[in-house]
Amino acid sequence: MVQERTAAVLPKKSENFSEWYTQVALRAELADYTPVRGSMAIRPYGYAIWEGIQSWLDRRFKETGHMNAYFPLLIPESFLKKEAEHVEGFAPQVAWVTHGGDEELSERLAVRPTSEAIILPMYAKWIQSYRDLPVLLLAWNNVVRWEKATRLFLRTAEFLWHEGHTAHRTMEDADAECRLILGIYQELLEQILAIPVLAGIKPPSERFAGAANTYTLEALMPDGQAIQAGTSHFLGQNFAKAFNVKFLDSDNQEKYIWSTSWAVSTRLIGSLIMAHGDDKGLILPPRIAPYEVVIVPILGRDDAKVLPAAKELAQHLGRRFRVKLDDRDAYTAGWKFNEWELRGAPVRLEIGPRDVANKQVVLSRRTGGAKQTVRIDGIEVTVGKILDEIQSELFERGRAYRDSHTTQAATVDELVRAIEQVQGFVKVGWCEMQSCEDTIRERTGASPRVIPLDEKASGKCVVCGMPAKAWVYYARAY
Amino acid sequence: MVQERTAAVLPKKSENFSEWYTQVALRAELADYTPVRGSMAIRPYGYAIWEGIQSWLDRRFKETGHMNAYFPLLIPESFLKKEAEHVEGFAPQVAWVTHGGDEELSERLAVRPTSEAIILPMYAKWIQSYRDLPVLLLAWNNVVRWEKATRLFLRTAEFLWHEGHTAHRTMEDADAECRLILGIYQELLEQILAIPVLAGIKPPSERFAGAANTYTLEALMPDGQAIQAGTSHFLGQNFAKAFNVKFLDSDNQEKYIWSTSWAVSTRLIGSLIMAHGDDKGLILPPRIAPYEVVIVPILGRDDAKVLPAAKELAQHLGRRFRVKLDDRDAYTAGWKFNEWELRGAPVRLEIGPRDVANKQVVLSRRTGGAKQTVRIDGIEVTVGKILDEIQSELFERGRAYRDSHTTQAATVDELVRAIEQVQGFVKVGWCEMQSCEDTIRERTGASPRVIPLDEKASGKCVVCGMPAKAWVYYARAY
Repeated sequence: MVQERTAAVLPKKSENFSEWYTQVALRAELADYTPVRGSMAIRPYGYAIWEGIQSWLDRRFKETGHMNAYFPLLIPESFLKKEAEHVEGFAPQVAWVTHGGDEELSERLAVRPTSEAIILPMYAKWIQSYRDLPVLLLAWNNVVRWEKATRLFLRTAEFLWHEGHTAHRTMEDADAECRLILGIYQELLEQILAIPVLAGIKPPSERFAGAANTYTLEALMPDGQAIQAGTSHFLGQNFAKAFNVKFLDSDNQEKYIWSTSWAVSTRLIGSLIMAHGDDKGLILPPRIAPYEVVIVPILGRDDAKVLPAAKELAQHLGRRFRVKLDDRDAYTAGWKFNEWELRGAPVRLEIGPRDVANKQVVLSRRTGGAKQTVRIDGIEVTVGKILDEIQSELFERGRAYRDSHTTQAATVDELVRAIEQVQGFVKVGWCEMQSCEDTIRERTGASPRVIPLDEKASGKCVVCGMPAKAWVYYARAY
Repeated sequence: MVQERTAAVLPKKSENFSEWYTQVALRAELADYTPVRGSMAIRPYGYAIWEGIQSWLDRRFKETGHMNAYFPLLIPESFLKKEAEHVEGFAPQVAWVTHGGDEELSERLAVRPTSEAIILPMYAKWIQSYRDLPVLLLAWNNVVRWEKATRLFLRTAEFLWHEGHTAHRTMEDADAECRLILGIYQELLEQILAIPVLAGIKPPSERFAGAANTYTLEALMPDGQAIQAGTSHFLGQNFAKAFNVKFLDSDNQEKYIWSTSWAVSTRLIGSLIMAHGDDKGLILPPRIAPYEVVIVPILGRDDAKVLPAAKELAQHLGRRFRVKLDDRDAYTAGWKFNEWELRGAPVRLEIGPRDVANKQVVLSRRTGGAKQTVRIDGIEVTVGKILDEIQSELFERGRAYRDSHTTQAATVDELVRAIEQVQGFVKVGWCEMQSCEDTIRERTGASPRVIPLDEKASGKCVVCGMPAKAWVYYARAY
């Protein structure tokens, strides 16, 4: 099966993006279909990428005073209904538990699509005084949203994420929390995953159900479609009022808390595949690759010399990098080269009998360029430098693509043409009327992705010609 | 609320063990009840203990070649039914999803009570050849088992665990895996959680539903009841046959794989509370305590001297230990002392103006003994030594208790008396007939907890007088 998996040629990324994506996810063994509708299995190599995202974020969240906790999977329907917009947004996607063993439940339970409706009631128990604030919790868990059409990682009935839920004394504190988190997400996307993003807020039509404001990061994928890469919701006092979460302030007044919620999910792995891969398969940025360096010994008559040298090299480099020594004897070196190209390892080192004799290895970069011979003495410096170069190269490629696929339009006709021809982000002025947004949606099939932060609007609304109150980036989207 | 929580006196552990347990779990803020029947919220301090268990185990699992993966939460009923004993064991406890949004499902889905029934079908896709074996995967996830009576951590409708699922070429390999995992669990229990355990196997009546053999660790709690602290199941080829998981061996024969599964859960936190706590609250073994050292500055007029010294101390000790500086100004030092005793921090350091002047601190051990003055110069050595002592002391206390509550019985009457009076483990010879086991269960209310590994039986069955084939430890159990 493994042999078949790599022997078959991948569809070309430029010709059939969608099929290329699915085949890379499957053949690189990131995920697989299961007998459960819309639910995937995340295989160890894919899960290792998720663990990399988790451990980086978890460290940053803890550094900024957040703590992990856990809340129930099953939420009584009456709780989900307490915030009106929230239930309206999520009810069509809820998987309902109606029976426990043989017993029919008196109230059905939602498998959580998100946890505001169970966390806020707990905050009502835990928060009494301004001294108890802020509450800065998050949970790493699974959620279910019943989806009609699903795609590996990008849209699945169940996915993994963290959901942050914080409670604050003032509106300003809650808003600052949203921006702090958006900054951490942007750092993850750009510095670790090497995916450039536009940061900003959503127009009201695209907000999280029940939020007063939604901060978002939007990335442009190589097919010209945008993908939401992380959101941070300013919930105002909407949920505090729905669940009656109050505190006694220092002025002896009872007040509602201000709350936020925020998340990134395993969907990021889908973005990672799309953003960087090529016709040979996956390309992983070094900072998130499960293995930054793969060592392939050239086996044969000289195993007794080559294998110990390869092991020593793996051990040496293993002190600084995540290293995989692929010493399986059931596969040829050539087969392994293809395998690790498919699986996107940033740097590959080959070591054969002649290399051992000359105290050198042959290094290949997954991003291309000629193979090069590298002396084993001091190799950790060379490898470190090359990994940094690959990391930057992937980010810069993404940024160049994004910039060359971002245009501005002054009329709806220009906007329609840009969406069709340039295939990317189109920036327009907007008067903030819903009707003008609706017109653009109908004409283009694109949606408003993001209103950039801290950028003053000027000029006119692209639809009605009234003074623009905001800039908006439109794109077709996942 | 915080004030009330610590002001009220705890029930005495020796007088009302059950209520003491619940109050400690709640007031130390490990967990709380939720509006969801039988489901608890795990609060940050309780979750930090779980993260300690996770990170220790995850490292050991990875060192021994295991990788993390993820499988669907929802399992179609037809899959759960494929292994007959398995479904019989779990069906009464299953929460069933019957609707997705407004749509009634054609087949209902079980919220996973355990994942053999979805993982084995995936193994059938992934395993083709002996070269693909062993498969050594585990998943950190949540499971639901619909329980009638629930208790925080010990028995909850939803709990967190990891489930390991491995596939092997031979029976011997699978059995060796079970023993390897049991050894890792025993190391966790004894070295990290400071809870002594008996290691062995379960009699057939107590096996995991569908297992050919269940390895177990059993700990004795201070109320004389045993608790299962970790299990590792040798599944033989039962699940391989039910789900048709075969591989082509090197002799060109198609064979069924041999599989195992194993788990420990958040239930361990319940054992930890019971095993070590006292009338003042929780006592945490240093190696698992979220904070090994809590520093309480004695605030007042001299804050300008004391606070910087306390911060410097926290920073210094923070390089070697998990340290919490409790510098909240809304609470008195005395209140904080009670708080951190309730929450079980192993070592507390007080630092006041005189201590700053004398370059010293006052150290208290949570396990008792007089306060002692410690010089700040070289304090990390003293603290390290004391933490090690506390770790050993807790384990030795537990072992002394267990040993003094373990007896042997030669007749059923002796066994009945021992269960009633000594309240602990009673070791008896057994002929391996189910009827003899049933007799003991009826007479004592105790169950057979564990058959010790590698200990040859001698003498007679305690019930029928036939030659004993095994030793069995009986106890009442959680």
